[in-house]
Amino acid sequence: MTAKSAKRAPGAGTVRGGRLDAAPSDLMDAINVSIDVDKRLHAEDIAASKAHCAMLVRQGIISEADGDAILGGLDTIGKEIEDGRFLFHRSLEDIHMNVESRLAELVGDAAGRLHTARSRNDQVATDLRLWLRQTLDDMDEALAGLQAVLIDKAEAHAGTVMPGFTHLQAAQPVTLGHHLLAYVEMFGRDRGRAADCRRRLNQCPLGAAALAGTSFPIDRRMTAEALGFDGPCANSLDAVSDRDFAMEFLGLAAVLAVHLSRLAEEIVLWCSDAFKFARLSDAFSTGSSIMPQKRNPDAAELVRAKTGRVIGALGALLVVMKGLPLAYGKDLQEDKVPVFKTAETLSLSLAAMAGMVSGMEFDTGRMKADAGGGFSTATDLADWLVRELDMPFRDAHRVTGRLVGLAEEKGLSLDGLHLDDMQSVEKGITEAVFGVLGVDNSVTSRDSFGGTAPERVRQAVSAARKRFLT
Amino acid sequence: MTAKSAKRAPGAGTVRGGRLDAAPSDLMDAINVSIDVDKRLHAEDIAASKAHCAMLVRQGIISEADGDAILGGLDTIGKEIEDGRFLFHRSLEDIHMNVESRLAELVGDAAGRLHTARSRNDQVATDLRLWLRQTLDDMDEALAGLQAVLIDKAEAHAGTVMPGFTHLQAAQPVTLGHHLLAYVEMFGRDRGRAADCRRRLNQCPLGAAALAGTSFPIDRRMTAEALGFDGPCANSLDAVSDRDFAMEFLGLAAVLAVHLSRLAEEIVLWCSDAFKFARLSDAFSTGSSIMPQKRNPDAAELVRAKTGRVIGALGALLVVMKGLPLAYGKDLQEDKVPVFKTAETLSLSLAAMAGMVSGMEFDTGRMKADAGGGFSTATDLADWLVRELDMPFRDAHRVTGRLVGLAEEKGLSLDGLHLDDMQSVEKGITEAVFGVLGVDNSVTSRDSFGGTAPERVRQAVSAARKRFLT
Amino acid sequence: MTAKSAKRAPGAGTVRGGRLDAAPSDLMDAINVSIDVDKRLHAEDIAASKAHCAMLVRQGIISEADGDAILGGLDTIGKEIEDGRFLFHRSLEDIHMNVESRLAELVGDAAGRLHTARSRNDQVATDLRLWLRQTLDDMDEALAGLQAVLIDKAEAHAGTVMPGFTHLQAAQPVTLGHHLLAYVEMFGRDRGRAADCRRRLNQCPLGAAALAGTSFPIDRRMTAEALGFDGPCANSLDAVSDRDFAMEFLGLAAVLAVHLSRLAEEIVLWCSDAFKFARLSDAFSTGSSIMPQKRNPDAAELVRAKTGRVIGALGALLVVMKGLPLAYGKDLQEDKVPVFKTAETLSLSLAAMAGMVSGMEFDTGRMKADAGGGFSTATDLADWLVRELDMPFRDAHRVTGRLVGLAEEKGLSLDGLHLDDMQSVEKGITEAVFGVLGVDNSVTSRDSFGGTAPERVRQAVSAARKRFLT
Amino acid sequence: MTAKSAKRAPGAGTVRGGRLDAAPSDLMDAINVSIDVDKRLHAEDIAASKAHCAMLVRQGIISEADGDAILGGLDTIGKEIEDGRFLFHRSLEDIHMNVESRLAELVGDAAGRLHTARSRNDQVATDLRLWLRQTLDDMDEALAGLQAVLIDKAEAHAGTVMPGFTHLQAAQPVTLGHHLLAYVEMFGRDRGRAADCRRRLNQCPLGAAALAGTSFPIDRRMTAEALGFDGPCANSLDAVSDRDFAMEFLGLAAVLAVHLSRLAEEIVLWCSDAFKFARLSDAFSTGSSIMPQKRNPDAAELVRAKTGRVIGALGALLVVMKGLPLAYGKDLQEDKVPVFKTAETLSLSLAAMAGMVSGMEFDTGRMKADAGGGFSTATDLADWLVRELDMPFRDAHRVTGRLVGLAEEKGLSLDGLHLDDMQSVEKGITEAVFGVLGVDNSVTSRDSFGGTAPERVRQAVSAARKRFLT
Repeated sequence: MTAKSAKRAPGAGTVRGGRLDAAPSDLMDAINVSIDVDKRLHAEDIAASKAHCAMLVRQGIISEADGDAILGGLDTIGKEIEDGRFLFHRSLEDIHMNVESRLAELVGDAAGRLHTARSRNDQVATDLRLWLRQTLDDMDEALAGLQAVLIDKAEAHAGTVMPGFTHLQAAQPVTLGHHLLAYVEMFGRDRGRAADCRRRLNQCPLGAAALAGTSFPIDRRMTAEALGFDGPCANSLDAVSDRDFAMEFLGLAAVLAVHLSRLAEEIVLWCSDAFKFARLSDAFSTGSSIMPQKRNPDAAELVRAKTGRVIGALGALLVVMKGLPLAYGKDLQEDKVPVFKTAETLSLSLAAMAGMVSGMEFDTGRMKADAGGGFSTATDLADWLVRELDMPFRDAHRVTGRLVGLAEEKGLSLDGLHLDDMQSVEKGITEAVFGVLGVDNSVTSRDSFGGTAPERVRQAVSAARKRFLT
Repeated sequence: MTAKSAKRAPGAGTVRGGRLDAAPSDLMDAINVSIDVDKRLHAEDIAASKAHCAMLVRQGIISEADGDAILGGLDTIGKEIEDGRFLFHRSLEDIHMNVESRLAELVGDAAGRLHTARSRNDQVATDLRLWLRQTLDDMDEALAGLQAVLIDKAEAHAGTVMPGFTHLQAAQPVTLGHHLLAYVEMFGRDRGRAADCRRRLNQCPLGAAALAGTSFPIDRRMTAEALGFDGPCANSLDAVSDRDFAMEFLGLAAVLAVHLSRLAEEIVLWCSDAFKFARLSDAFSTGSSIMPQKRNPDAAELVRAKTGRVIGALGALLVVMKGLPLAYGKDLQEDKVPVFKTAETLSLSLAAMAGMVSGMEFDTGRMKADAGGGFSTATDLADWLVRELDMPFRDAHRVTGRLVGLAEEKGLSLDGLHLDDMQSVEKGITEAVFGVLGVDNSVTSRDSFGGTAPERVRQAVSAARKRFLT
Repeated sequence: MTAKSAKRAPGAGTVRGGRLDAAPSDLMDAINVSIDVDKRLHAEDIAASKAHCAMLVRQGIISEADGDAILGGLDTIGKEIEDGRFLFHRSLEDIHMNVESRLAELVGDAAGRLHTARSRNDQVATDLRLWLRQTLDDMDEALAGLQAVLIDKAEAHAGTVMPGFTHLQAAQPVTLGHHLLAYVEMFGRDRGRAADCRRRLNQCPLGAAALAGTSFPIDRRMTAEALGFDGPCANSLDAVSDRDFAMEFLGLAAVLAVHLSRLAEEIVLWCSDAFKFARLSDAFSTGSSIMPQKRNPDAAELVRAKTGRVIGALGALLVVMKGLPLAYGKDLQEDKVPVFKTAETLSLSLAAMAGMVSGMEFDTGRMKADAGGGFSTATDLADWLVRELDMPFRDAHRVTGRLVGLAEEKGLSLDGLHLDDMQSVEKGITEAVFGVLGVDNSVTSRDSFGGTAPERVRQAVSAARKRFLT
Repeated sequence: MTAKSAKRAPGAGTVRGGRLDAAPSDLMDAINVSIDVDKRLHAEDIAASKAHCAMLVRQGIISEADGDAILGGLDTIGKEIEDGRFLFHRSLEDIHMNVESRLAELVGDAAGRLHTARSRNDQVATDLRLWLRQTLDDMDEALAGLQAVLIDKAEAHAGTVMPGFTHLQAAQPVTLGHHLLAYVEMFGRDRGRAADCRRRLNQCPLGAAALAGTSFPIDRRMTAEALGFDGPCANSLDAVSDRDFAMEFLGLAAVLAVHLSRLAEEIVLWCSDAFKFARLSDAFSTGSSIMPQKRNPDAAELVRAKTGRVIGALGALLVVMKGLPLAYGKDLQEDKVPVFKTAETLSLSLAAMAGMVSGMEFDTGRMKADAGGGFSTATDLADWLVRELDMPFRDAHRVTGRLVGLAEEKGLSLDGLHLDDMQSVEKGITEAVFGVLGVDNSVTSRDSFGGTAPERVRQAVSAARKRFLT
């Protein structure tokens, strides 16, 4: 790219003020102009301008006639944009100046009065908060939807036994319902974080003007209320330079993405030939351009991978903000791409995950068979020794370790060992021990609060519906 | 390092179970053993064990006599550690096994009953939550302390005029008090995020055991309550594999570090020869090994730089967690270093920042003189045109731009222009305009809510004391 | 979004193979389809297909007639795309299937033979390497261009004295030319890293097929050579699953972005009202919508901020790659956005930086005046004491510290002190000392290799031209 | 922590210069003092001081007698540190002042002459480059060691058939030797990056002094040569403010950590109950405190997790460096922890990985049996159709898809289908097709360059030995 200066559309002077003679170079335009990104804020920008205008009228700062003209013009512009008839000009840099410039065409001089007692600095902060607030509401709905799908599956599989893993090694049998409810908890915390973020961002920057407030007798509470904010931001310098809401959003988004990546990883594992626990619906499987037999879990892999994009966006904004002096700096313009891209990515990932889980079919026979592998009821055996023989747990742990070694040596499962063999290790063991060595008994016995027993899972399903879906 | 196997302390077998014959290699020890890091959790580990023990007794799972022995032994161990008399063994891997092993020495067989119905997986999750809860409380106190220092300075400088910058260019005069209160808002939000994190983490994992709950008739509510938790975690798989609390903590820590970096950057700027707004106390300045005249703001630079460490820690844990299947995996052991290091870093940074701000002296004359530079009252002039001549803001903006150009051409400030000159640009301008061109008038006039006017700042100081320090 | 299944364009079956019955859901399409991103690889994809086709013909795997048809068809498609006449179908997922499908329309059955002995896995790896190789060449050119601008400015300002800062405090006078050449070194290292990355990536994956190589008698050296690669990748599993080249590119991009951010920070400082060292051209300045007097260095701030985007992209890809088992996984599709966006960002930033530096004007009077502030020649004084009075440096450092203290107390600069005053601190000092206290003498004296003396700078300019621009 | 000022050890004045009256506060010490971290650089610091001293003598800047005293003193200090007899003082801030202060005790006044024509700024940059150069050499050796282990295993398993996965779905049979060699390629590129980093960092900052060079007639080439550098850094400002070498190191370290994480992930999968491909030696397995049967691959999980730490360290330093103006700032002190911790982490991870791979035993029967699952020779069938029936690949792909569907419907593998069944889909198929449907035939046939055929793998083993281990 070369740095020659371009012809500019009329109106461009507005933005650059009377003090800059030469037009910006093409390069300056290329790096500076944000309309391609921030036009997504059009509805919020118009809503905020309407609230500001109504306030200016009520405070007597502009006339009712000018106010009416402005409000009418803004409505027209809103419709033009929604209908795709609005012509965005790069020479007008951003959404704010595009709207104001069109307003001047529509209503003439009155348009020039709208920017009284405000600045693009407080405008854009207001717009982005409004946009993010809606995004958080949408995300909450999507998360609730995913929780509903998981809860339904959990209910259907409250009694489905599968291997519970630690270190991806068979640890103890668990129920699939219990496993799925773990994700319901995670997504529940994500919703909590989103709600906290929403509450904290719901302060209105409008009226902070460029950085210092204004000498016009504005009523910031009125505009805040009109836009659904809880009140105005308390400090004007902070109002225009703060991007905490965006950083906090990206922080919670990263944790959510991590949760999605964990579930996605499990789907990839469960659908693998080695596990064969589950099968995705055709609608969420892909084939191969060379291997005709493939059923690939691409959507799960993509959900897992997109964690990178979200964590990257978080890092990006933190780097942008690091070391910025007050108040507004143009660096802050770099807040939008990470926020917008993250919202898009998560919206898609949440919907895809709900679709995948909803259509996934489980091979419950295979899962149950595998649940018994890896001596997975060894803990049950140790606990039996504690309970029935009053053995200290540490001793029981050692005895069980020897029994596992014996079984492995003989190529048997634990409940395949003869009582004689067991007694050769610990003579107190009786026939009754076999009652705890089956996987069904194992899961049923773990009925402490929060445990995997089917009855507990059913209670947890019902509690989760109450906590999360009503 | 080579991979030969080492002699092991007695008791090591406990950890490795009966199934592993060979001892771990030195390398395995070097990568696996966590006692150097997690011994910091000793107080929490003992508190959790005591709560667990008391519950086991009340539920009749272990005898009162055993319970008393265990509780007494744990108290002894707690004292030994605090007094520096406790001998940590690397062969016992972590804090949990070190404590249990010593307990066996002290109380014999009863010690072996403590691990009934629990696992290191729920133990460590409990310990870390307890530790982080205390850390969040300490951080809240440190943040309040920093806010107090800032609020006091803000009160003292409610009327001190300085240049307000956007893009580091003089924009409009502001008051130093107003500027400092912007940081009080930021740190206030940090405290809000910390409180939300604390509330959300305050669920007790104890009783989740390895991953699936337990068949012993435990009372999870009792242990949760004894440890000050709001209740037990609802899902055992989630309880042992969740590290949301650590990720959420690091997320809020990163935002806090960004805030500190912004203030640190300003201190570096203000103390520079170019700005000369402020001077750090000798106690927070450093010299040079080669340049004898230096007074370097090293502490501010280090606070700014340590943002990197905190953002790095956040990234580190997110990477660890990405794509981990349930339930516990050893990867989770990598949660502690980022959390501990971040807490240390922020504790130090917050204290250093409070010390710096508290001892900083401002050159108010220089600040006021600079406040008038850069045509900083141009907005006041434009607003005057709007208010007095009923000019639309856009026109006023253009007229003012021309006046600034004229002043610059003549090498004058705005209030150095003759009325004649002004009228040559806009004939409606009157002598009264000079009333808004001084920096004192400028800041006094910006008295909208959240604005920079000294009176507003005093109100804001008093409101901030009420919101944050009572 | 809801998960209903869409009607699909003909040809879609090709991708999904014969084993998937139902069409993918809209959601699956939304998350899976990559054509919007990877169509940027069209030229590389066609070039690679042509090389592959020519090889298949020469090896007798397909007929010459089929080969000719395919080559002709590919040329046609290339032109269609360049002319904007090509219709991309989302139902065909990616650039590879879009091209192949159109090829079938153009040349019929022969098209079906092109995919012999290859897979999309090796295709996309080849395409991306080709694309990145060109990008690295373009980046090298842009870096050389920026170096040229800096070297020219450095030559013009070889003798321009300015304050040299450490900790942003006046340390010692330096020359502006010397300062600018520091960046020439940085960008020189960036070019070195880019060259190393280019060399390392220049291995051809083509022929690795899906993951395991092929049973067709292909000649991988022939295709590698035709595409300008140094040879074929040595291991087929590695060839399709390796994204080192992308990670290495993002790594060097992050360092380059850091360099740009440092220069951008200095431009922001230098153009500030506090420093007033420099002024950007109008073409690279912006105004304000509310403050008519502003000349904002937005481009510099944006270059500084975009570091975040690049560091974020690096983090994103590292997260994607972490923990992926071999061979190809769909996660790898997430390599493109970070690479493409980073290349765009840097291309723009480099051009904008060259434009800014080129048009920047320096206030050399102001810079020189400030160079003498802050007792900046104290080191010269200490060195004089060492040289002339044979004082150990540590003693000289202490003596100078006292002289600085004395001067500060009296409100004088070092060369403003009377000889008497100096002698009251160290009686050996003579009139000759004043010869080293001026800033011109100071910079001229620092003529060690790599030092700031104007003569050294001129030599360095000439050496830099030789090293970097020929 | 409170901010009171502490009593200081004698000598502390040296560092702070004559201009700071009050002692630093404890807090200032806590945040500023780096000796706990940088004492690791003691050998490098002494080596650099010796080189500097020898040069000062040869240039006549200090006397031979002083030079001899200094060199002798430095040797003494080196021995004291190695023997653990050296007393480090926090009041002396860092390794440089600790050494110099002790030198003064040992040799008196001469010690004060060592700091002539240098500064801590160029000293620390030199020390860290020397340290990192050695670290890169050690890392190269560790990488070569890991490659050797992998190559040996690859040779032993050149003919061991296992499933090759894409998307973790069975794709095509491969050989284990081929799979392991993919990692040899990755680690080979890591070594290449390390070598490039080493070459680029091998420039000597010594003599840049604080930032501007020096007026003493030093010989920078002499010191550079004495320390094994290729030459002196070309620009003094760059020399003291550049940390490219550290960022480049962390960048390549992150890619290496990603490679290790991929292999670690595969080890976790292979050792899982679902895969059962491999078993770690007891020396690299761990047990469970509650589940006596466990053999956990903790070391592999930790290697995988530690990727987070390395990526975090990279992010940390990039954040530190972003936006720093020239020349030295105290922020740069934050370069050491990420570099040191990363070097430690990788050293440990590489050794642990070599130990794990070396002792890992494979269940080749299980691997081969699984290699035939998932219709993994479908591509062989399609290729047969192309070769023998001259079918375009696209048609062959479709036909094979139908055959896979048929086999799945009948619960058969592909080679379990009757010829009749096959002919019902494609009548041209003959008995000869069964020759390509076995997994041994499949791998043997993929003998293109870089392919998985055992013969190719043996050639690749031998080529790898030549490329990487000689």
